[in-house]
This record gives sequence, structure tokens and C-alpha cells, in this order.
Amino acid sequence: MLTLYYAPDTISLATHILLEEVGAAYSTVRIDFKKTQQRSPEYLKINPKGRMPALITDRGILTETPAMLVFVAQSSGRPDLALMDDPFAFAGIQAFNSYLCSSLHINHAHRMRGARWVDANDAAAIAAMQRHVPISVGANYDLIERDMLKGPWVMGERYTICDPYLFTLAQWLETDGVDPKRVPKVIEHRRRMSERAATKKAIAQELA
Amino acid sequence: MLTLYYAPDTISLATHILLEEVGAAYSTVRIDFKKTQQRSPEYLKINPKGRMPALITDRGILTETPAMLVFVAQSSGRPDLALMDDPFAFAGIQAFNSYLCSSLHINHAHRMRGARWVDANDAAAIAAMQRHVPISVGANYDLIERDMLKGPWVMGERYTICDPYLFTLAQWLETDGVDPKRVPKVIEHRRRMSERAATKKAIAQELA
Repeated sequence: MLTLYYAPDTISLATHILLEEVGAAYSTVRIDFKKTQQRSPEYLKINPKGRMPALITDRGILTETPAMLVFVAQSSGRPDLALMDDPFAFAGIQAFNSYLCSSLHINHAHRMRGARWVDANDAAAIAAMQRHVPISVGANYDLIERDMLKGPWVMGERYTICDPYLFTLAQWLETDGVDPKRVPKVIEHRRRMSERAATKKAIAQELA
Repeated sequence: MLTLYYAPDTISLATHILLEEVGAAYSTVRIDFKKTQQRSPEYLKINPKGRMPALITDRGILTETPAMLVFVAQSSGRPDLALMDDPFAFAGIQAFNSYLCSSLHINHAHRMRGARWVDANDAAAIAAMQRHVPISVGANYDLIERDMLKGPWVMGERYTICDPYLFTLAQWLETDGVDPKRVPKVIEHRRRMSERAATKKAIAQELA
């Protein structure tokens, strides 16, 4: 039995969708960012980083979306969702997810979480970061559109753990200041993902 | 046969050490950052992201350190170096490496690569980022020291792919403004890593 700690409108949705996709037995605990529950002593005992998501397993606690996505696939008997039996294909999946986590998600975070990288009182620097988000995030999406997203799914004909991850980040594409017309394949992928039963169920749970 | 594109004093050292550790057949190509070769048309054909490192394999090109480390272990018949047969243990390895790539390395990069996140001409914002690096990187090392580094190796008794990755980032600990006395376990780990034959050989090659 797994327990997913999540917050609506955060990256936890990627793991949430995958849990539905593999038919995992799991429950959820909602963390309220408006009440800063991710910094509460209770949550910091679960995840000392104070970030979303965290996954409680029979053997301990896991964090970090790229790790959790592989874990959910592998531990549910679906290593095929990460192409794990093929070292090169698996590395391609991991490289894509690593790019999402360390480039796209990070660049996006400079819009709302600038105080991670400058003094929280430095309004000018925080505003400078926010102004740059459409450029940095836009460049990430240009590369994804041109070189990475094979279509119809990220890795081609097969749905993999890359798909719910890209879908979740692409929720923020417009608010990050990227014109959706610039990345038609990403938008088509987002639409295709939104039609899957697992995606609908995870989103419905989070909005309930 | 593998070919590693690397640049001295960058994160490519982590993969370089692991290639030595597993006894892989590989050659290297040095990229000169002083000549901005990572942005040359030739290198951008290999890695359109213009970043280090890249690994040329028989089946294509791989990028992103967390992906490459797993690939080198798995494809060289050493999946044990990533504890890949145990989904929970493997997820722990991936979570650690994901934290290095998306938190520690990113925070470090705000010292020298601030123009990724603000206008390159905004000297005040870039300086504001630089001033914050000792705080953000210091917080990462505090967490690693307290909660993550089990000792003697990152994952405990067994050397894994986490070790060359942490070692490489810890090269920059002092220049990132972190007092080494604050993180004795990290410093001891760095010393222990520096004594391994594979580490010595990779560093010697890069400095040659």
C-alpha cells in the first residue's frame, strides 16, 4: 500500500497519474500550500526538503519525481513503462525526465519561487527572474518540440513515464508566458494525455 | 565502445570516474569552455542543449548525468552499482542523484551561470544570485550531511553511482562559499573518493 502526499497544481500530479495508470493500491494525503503545510513540522518529518511530492511505501519514504516515477513503474510490475530492460532506451527516458526536473521545472520555478535563489527581500532581483521565465521556459519547450517529443507519446508509439511528467509541467505553459501556438506537438500531447482515464481520475481526485 | 565528451572542472567528471570504475572501453573528447566550444555548431549537433557531458554509444547519444550514470552501470553489467534489482533501493539512489542534479547543482550554477535565469545585462540581479549561493548550496549540504550521506559511501557500505556524483559537486564546495568544517561527513567522503584508483585516473586524464 502506497500513500502519496500531494498538493494540487504541483508536480505531484505526475506521480498521481502514474499511480492510476498502473492500477496501484494507494491513498492520498493533501498538503495545503496556502497554509504552508509543506513547511509544517509534521510534513518535514516525512520530507525534510519541504517539497512535493512524497510517497510512503512499506519500506520507507521516497521523494523526487524522476525517482518516484521509475519506482511506481518498476514496483508495480510495469518496468515496460520505463523501458527498463533496454539500458539505452531507459537512459533516454531518464534523460528526458532529468531535463524536465533540472531545466524546465527549475526555469518555471523562477516565476513563483525566486526566493530560493536570491534574498527574499530583493524585489528587483525576483522581478528580474520572473521577466526571464518566458525566455528560459520557452527555450526548453522549443527543444522539446523540435528534438525530444517523438509523438504521439514522448518516446514514440509507447506511453511511458515521461508522458505524465511532461503533461503536468505543460499545465503551466501559458502562465509561464509561452505562446501555445509555438509548440503544437506539446499542446497536442497535452490534449491526448488529458483524454486518458488515468489522467482524468487523478485530476478529479485532486480537485475534489 | 563509448565516447565521452567532457570539459575539465564540470559535472562530466562524475561519468568519467564511473567509466573508469566499471572498466568500460571508452575514449574521450575534450570540449574547451574558454573557447565556448560547448556552443559550437559541431557540438550542438551532438548535444543541442550545449551542456556537458554527452556520451556517444553504439545506439545514439545520451545526455544528463543521472541518466548516464545508470546507463554506464547497467550497460556494463554492473546494475548492482545502482542497486537496480531492488526497486526501493534503486529509487533511493535515483532520489539522491535527482536532488544533486535539480537542487545542489542548480543552486551552484547560480554563481557562474546566472544569465540562464535573468537578462545577461542585469548585473545587479546576477550579483544578487551570486550572494545567495552560500546560503542555498549550504542548505543542500546541511541536508546531505544530516539526512542523506549514510557513510562511508552515500548509500552505506556499498559504493554506488551516487558517490562519483557527490564527489564531483563537492569539488566546488569551498568556492561556493560553504565552510568545509560545517559538513565533516561530506569532506571525509570527498577524501575517501579521491583515494580510489578510478577517481585518480579520471582526474589525471582530464588534467593531462
